[in-house]
Amino acid sequence: MKVQPRTLSGFMELLPREQLIMERIMQTLRETYSSYGFTPLDTPVIEASEVLLAKGGGETEKQIYRFTKGDSDLSLRFDLTVPLAKYVALHYGSLTFPFRRYQIGKVYRGERAQRGRFREFYQADIDIIGDGKLDVTNEAEIPAIIYQTFSRLGLQRFRILVNNRKILNGFYAILNLTEQSGDIMRTVDKLDKIGAEKVAGLLTEELGLSPAAAEKIMQFISINGTNAEVLAELDRYTGKNELFDAGRAELETVVKYLSAFGVPEEYFAVDLTIARGLDYYTGTVYETAMLDHPEIGSICSGGRYDNLAEYYTNKVLPGVGISIGLTRLFYVLNEQKMLNTEAAGASADVLILPMTPDLAPAISLASRLRELGIRVQLYTEKKKFNAKMNYADRQGIPYVIFLGDDEIAAKLVSCKDMATGEQTKLDFDQTYMRIVKGLEQRQSAAVISAQK
Amino acid sequence: MKVQPRTLSGFMELLPREQLIMERIMQTLRETYSSYGFTPLDTPVIEASEVLLAKGGGETEKQIYRFTKGDSDLSLRFDLTVPLAKYVALHYGSLTFPFRRYQIGKVYRGERAQRGRFREFYQADIDIIGDGKLDVTNEAEIPAIIYQTFSRLGLQRFRILVNNRKILNGFYAILNLTEQSGDIMRTVDKLDKIGAEKVAGLLTEELGLSPAAAEKIMQFISINGTNAEVLAELDRYTGKNELFDAGRAELETVVKYLSAFGVPEEYFAVDLTIARGLDYYTGTVYETAMLDHPEIGSICSGGRYDNLAEYYTNKVLPGVGISIGLTRLFYVLNEQKMLNTEAAGASADVLILPMTPDLAPAISLASRLRELGIRVQLYTEKKKFNAKMNYADRQGIPYVIFLGDDEIAAKLVSCKDMATGEQTKLDFDQTYMRIVKGLEQRQSAAVISAQK
Repeated sequence: MKVQPRTLSGFMELLPREQLIMERIMQTLRETYSSYGFTPLDTPVIEASEVLLAKGGGETEKQIYRFTKGDSDLSLRFDLTVPLAKYVALHYGSLTFPFRRYQIGKVYRGERAQRGRFREFYQADIDIIGDGKLDVTNEAEIPAIIYQTFSRLGLQRFRILVNNRKILNGFYAILNLTEQSGDIMRTVDKLDKIGAEKVAGLLTEELGLSPAAAEKIMQFISINGTNAEVLAELDRYTGKNELFDAGRAELETVVKYLSAFGVPEEYFAVDLTIARGLDYYTGTVYETAMLDHPEIGSICSGGRYDNLAEYYTNKVLPGVGISIGLTRLFYVLNEQKMLNTEAAGASADVLILPMTPDLAPAISLASRLRELGIRVQLYTEKKKFNAKMNYADRQGIPYVIFLGDDEIAAKLVSCKDMATGEQTKLDFDQTYMRIVKGLEQRQSAAVISAQK
Repeated sequence: MKVQPRTLSGFMELLPREQLIMERIMQTLRETYSSYGFTPLDTPVIEASEVLLAKGGGETEKQIYRFTKGDSDLSLRFDLTVPLAKYVALHYGSLTFPFRRYQIGKVYRGERAQRGRFREFYQADIDIIGDGKLDVTNEAEIPAIIYQTFSRLGLQRFRILVNNRKILNGFYAILNLTEQSGDIMRTVDKLDKIGAEKVAGLLTEELGLSPAAAEKIMQFISINGTNAEVLAELDRYTGKNELFDAGRAELETVVKYLSAFGVPEEYFAVDLTIARGLDYYTGTVYETAMLDHPEIGSICSGGRYDNLAEYYTNKVLPGVGISIGLTRLFYVLNEQKMLNTEAAGASADVLILPMTPDLAPAISLASRLRELGIRVQLYTEKKKFNAKMNYADRQGIPYVIFLGDDEIAAKLVSCKDMATGEQTKLDFDQTYMRIVKGLEQRQSAAVISAQK
């Protein structure tokens, strides 16, 4: 009796060529994050439930994979932030602050299964944690890291949207609407979907604001223009509320260092409608929009918070962080046919087909190429020539080398470029140079391509 | 009320400098496996229990993390082989064979907690799966991959031990001991621990073999010498059993191609006492011993099997694979102080300390260095100078750059080598060259060092 093999719904399992691209995306993230001095972190997938759920779960609690093993009450992590808080609180004495870590790991949420929704998915997070204090320049660095990350992946039409919770909270305090500010922000958040007129209507009808207050809010959130223009507009509100002024100063710092950080102005915008749902953000907040795909929502979000680990420790640990929902992003890019399978999805650079019974010369050739950094697969199955070429083709391998008695005697190598069909018979060095040149061209292509 | 932060026992959670080394080890594995044309694979951590346990668990079944979510009976994977079998059976039509995959992933076994034993641990597996057939040359390639992997990591005193199950099964058939061969192999496996005399005693007393048979077995397993000598000795048994002859021919092929594959003879030995416990191995079997630490046991094992996925499909899928128990290996190397924290455990290459209120010049310098591939952290916290230097020191960052008004005006960069204490004041290009040179030297150091 055979068991029907299957993979659980809501669990992404990629075919090899797709997985190669996912791997290259992860490698780009690791390299980019490392280049800013973030260290990798790896925490267990399973934690004690009382530790993981210290904060209480709210909405997420129902989704958590929770079970017992022996007499332990265990849960699978549902994000990478709670494990980070635990880690920093637990290892506080062994860490140096600011502690900059990245973590790319799987998290689990038992959501209702639905196309494009995942129960097991990768998050790719970076956070900078201070001990007691954390300078605002760290908040200015984050958009630079977001910009570098997506640019290196090849994404072109995106924009990093930035706001500051102090500006929002200060503004609502000026209007004496502090208590309703949560509801107001949630309503304003619908702006993209329902338009300004309907938002204004909800503010007066549902939230019971005066028409004057609603107008002031609509006026405020309609502020736009260049970063300098937005800051100038915000200046009209300064001097009325300390929190507002502090937020505006922080925003100015973030904007000021952008060009030094190498972020072109068109990739960045102050957007006063951004609030981020979570209550624990207290300063700069970030979202990242794909300009041609607003329906996808933010592909990288986060912000500044004042107290990472208050459920575990009395230490005050402020931080700033962002998160990419990697599995969902991969899914969307794949759906949009924006993944560059051609350039990134090859299992090897060269397939060697030995044409002699003695494999030693072919094996030596493979070893020599590998030492020079080429990924080489030796194909030794007893198949027809066409089947072998078909194998190279299906695996996306760009070069096939034939090594027969003639070549071995003449110290030459026959090499076919699978893309152009061109076949050469050159010595080792010349063949190697040709392959390296071709690979450089292929590898210069980014993993995300412009939309096809 | 604070919740006490803790990490479950049996779950490895590393500090940043250790994690950097683990990350570098994983990166070396990814690169080495890729250089032989293996593609990365990533399967879910959670599978349906009926799928994961199709084969029946035996000893492992009690250790499995199994639970229900809604009305689904779920289990965490306990190795990477069963998920591979499921994957190949499920995606058979979309794969090209031989299918060469590597997978580095966490697996779960609820073993009794014990120092050096882990409940969540990484396995790093490679397998080559054929469709119906798989050529023996794949078995010859495996020792080359093991050799490359450990050599690139910097491990020096190790040896790959190889045997062939057909030789063993054929030999016991020649002695008419096929039915007892399992018991005999388990007894012979104790040779290292209890010595030859006691093994011989157990064979006659416990298993009831005749003294003549026991002597023949002891004679057989004592065969040693160079590979050529062992093969010559084995020749004395040929012509009596087809299976034995086939195994001997396979072993000869494996040995024959070793030097072409670049494996020095001293890193390899035929060892007729190696059997590997698992019943599904049918041909070449591998173990890898650390010569100075025999107590650790094999650090990389595997072998040839005839039918990967028989519980899921009628397709015959022979393969060969090896597995490294990465978490355990890391633990052991760390215990033995063989991990090169000095060279590999730095969170960044350069720490920039801006000495002016305007950070723009420091930020630009950081961006320029990053573009050239240097990992740069900008330190902008308001701390005393000594605290900043101490930060670099604790993070293992090898170079600290100071950028004050003087340097900016003179277009120079002050840079301190933290290892030697030497400080230079040079222009950008000269500073960059000095850093690159130093980093090259550091990075040439392997991640595993000779025992201290």
